Amino acid sequence: MIQNTPAPSAPRLIALDWGTSSQRAWLLGDGGRILDVRRPDFGLLGTTGDDPASRTRAYEAAFDEACGDWIVATPDLPAIACGMVGSAQGWREAGYLTTPTDLAIGADDLTTVPHPRGVLHLVPGLRVAPAADGTVAGDVMRGEETQIIGALGMLPRTDRPLTIVLPGTHTKWARVENRKIVSFATSMSGELYGLVIRHGILGRTATTAVRDDAAFERGLATGTSTPSRGLPAELFGARALVLDGLLDPGSLPDYVSGVIIADEIRHLLPQYTDENRILLCGNADLCRRYAAGLRVHGVAADIVAEEAAAQGLWRVALDAGLVDPAPSTNPEKESL
Amino acid sequence: MIQNTPAPSAPRLIALDWGTSSQRAWLLGDGGRILDVRRPDFGLLGTTGDDPASRTRAYEAAFDEACGDWIVATPDLPAIACGMVGSAQGWREAGYLTTPTDLAIGADDLTTVPHPRGVLHLVPGLRVAPAADGTVAGDVMRGEETQIIGALGMLPRTDRPLTIVLPGTHTKWARVENRKIVSFATSMSGELYGLVIRHGILGRTATTAVRDDAAFERGLATGTSTPSRGLPAELFGARALVLDGLLDPGSLPDYVSGVIIADEIRHLLPQYTDENRILLCGNADLCRRYAAGLRVHGVAADIVAEEAAAQGLWRVALDAGLVDPAPSTNPEKESL
Repeated sequence: MIQNTPAPSAPRLIALDWGTSSQRAWLLGDGGRILDVRRPDFGLLGTTGDDPASRTRAYEAAFDEACGDWIVATPDLPAIACGMVGSAQGWREAGYLTTPTDLAIGADDLTTVPHPRGVLHLVPGLRVAPAADGTVAGDVMRGEETQIIGALGMLPRTDRPLTIVLPGTHTKWARVENRKIVSFATSMSGELYGLVIRHGILGRTATTAVRDDAAFERGLATGTSTPSRGLPAELFGARALVLDGLLDPGSLPDYVSGVIIADEIRHLLPQYTDENRILLCGNADLCRRYAAGLRVHGVAADIVAEEAAAQGLWRVALDAGLVDPAPSTNPEKESL
Repeated sequence: MIQNTPAPSAPRLIALDWGTSSQRAWLLGDGGRILDVRRPDFGLLGTTGDDPASRTRAYEAAFDEACGDWIVATPDLPAIACGMVGSAQGWREAGYLTTPTDLAIGADDLTTVPHPRGVLHLVPGLRVAPAADGTVAGDVMRGEETQIIGALGMLPRTDRPLTIVLPGTHTKWARVENRKIVSFATSMSGELYGLVIRHGILGRTATTAVRDDAAFERGLATGTSTPSRGLPAELFGARALVLDGLLDPGSLPDYVSGVIIADEIRHLLPQYTDENRILLCGNADLCRRYAAGLRVHGVAADIVAEEAAAQGLWRVALDAGLVDPAPSTNPEKESL
């Protein structure tokens, strides 16, 4: 028997970030170490059905396709999921916790949904309750709360207040104080970018997109200029630039990206922090863009890569007692 | 011979407002009086082709379908068109006049395009030249210049400065001083509304839309509230309201309409006027919405219905000498 290589960690947890348009499935070992990852290109959209029974069957099939073999290999492996799979349109409605909410989500907060090989635990979403007088707007997140928990767990523990931004289709700005998420806001900047480039007149103006960092910086400058003419006017301005020969059609998407991100930052940054440092968590290219947009305001960014969700799911599973913090005893060793 | 009824005016001009997605064709008599109107539901989109020759044939066929019988009935009837038909993607590029530009567009400014039954005159578009230092954004319009000319012609003549807003897919804000269009800006608010409702997550949140004026007013209030969280955040807020049961899904489109129009007005109104009265020209329902948005800022609106384009085309044809200002001699009378 070969005992020279370090024994691999036994699988400890199946963790899924299951959103509307994509899914990630991680097989996690000791300490949340990623043993395997799958990124199926479908999310909830592939699992909708008209009646509840067929929807349930579709979710069971999708779950089985994502990680059924992991469960077969290690029966009784706990499984946990965050994201839109827990929405009213998902597998089962997992509810919301209302801000301010502790970063430690407990066992009572999880919703369980049975499947043929066991049970899947769903992480609740987060909501901001709207103020009756209109001074606080209501908001919701589902999946990002787990990314926030994961991102904060990857930093040295601190009790200092912190603003964290998760760029994406629906970018989240969240404020963490005293280990609680105290408030957050969503900007659908990423969705708007996709809509105007894929379905709008700017998409017809653009030719094959080329990466153009200078065009992105120009867009940032336009979206930051004072007084603002408003986002829809600055977007149309991109078309005028192309017609005037002042912007290459292939560079239009990067210019528009800069305009939209700058507009978001100019509005939400002053409402979320007066510090000169924030935390960005998400896709590397998007984080780079937001970091550039923040620099315009003299704000530096720390960036956490997007595997935060896996770490967040591990953390929630620990806090909820689904997994034991102690390392697994290696089955190979036991058999010696 | 019956001579008791007033003699009908003879046709004097064929006038077309030919845009990207729709077309209007008017048969105009003395003084620009509308004798007949057609509103084919297709615009340029039905007349695109890969090669110039097939595009030309498609435009000729579309023109013939719109008004060929009018020309057959009255050969040598002059024809004039404004709108995207004069764009680079249109029948023939009709160029741009650069602001500030006189409201009287002359014969030299028109572009002619031959067709099997004669010649069609195309009205040039308008452009704002961007300032090299970035203080003035470039912009373009094509078709709205003719609506502005028509709308102003329908008002008592005045030399007072005036701000005119033409709500639509690409809403135009224009400033008229000393009978010149001195500047304008475009906000793609209408396009954004269509994109988020037709293609975005808000469209999936909405059920069958119902008219809800109270929801529209709520949207206006949100889009006017200070400090603004930015348009993409206020739009996502509509989804949160629905999830919280605070907004009926069927009322979401009117709420979103209010948010978007308020955001546009809060940005562009202070840049276009400090007067308490502006002129709105366009679709009656949209003008009603903009008038409500302007009232929030204490600004009253005069509204001109959308037939302004027909009057504008008549005015341009007069200024360019395509038609004679004197009433036609009635052919029936002549035959007596």
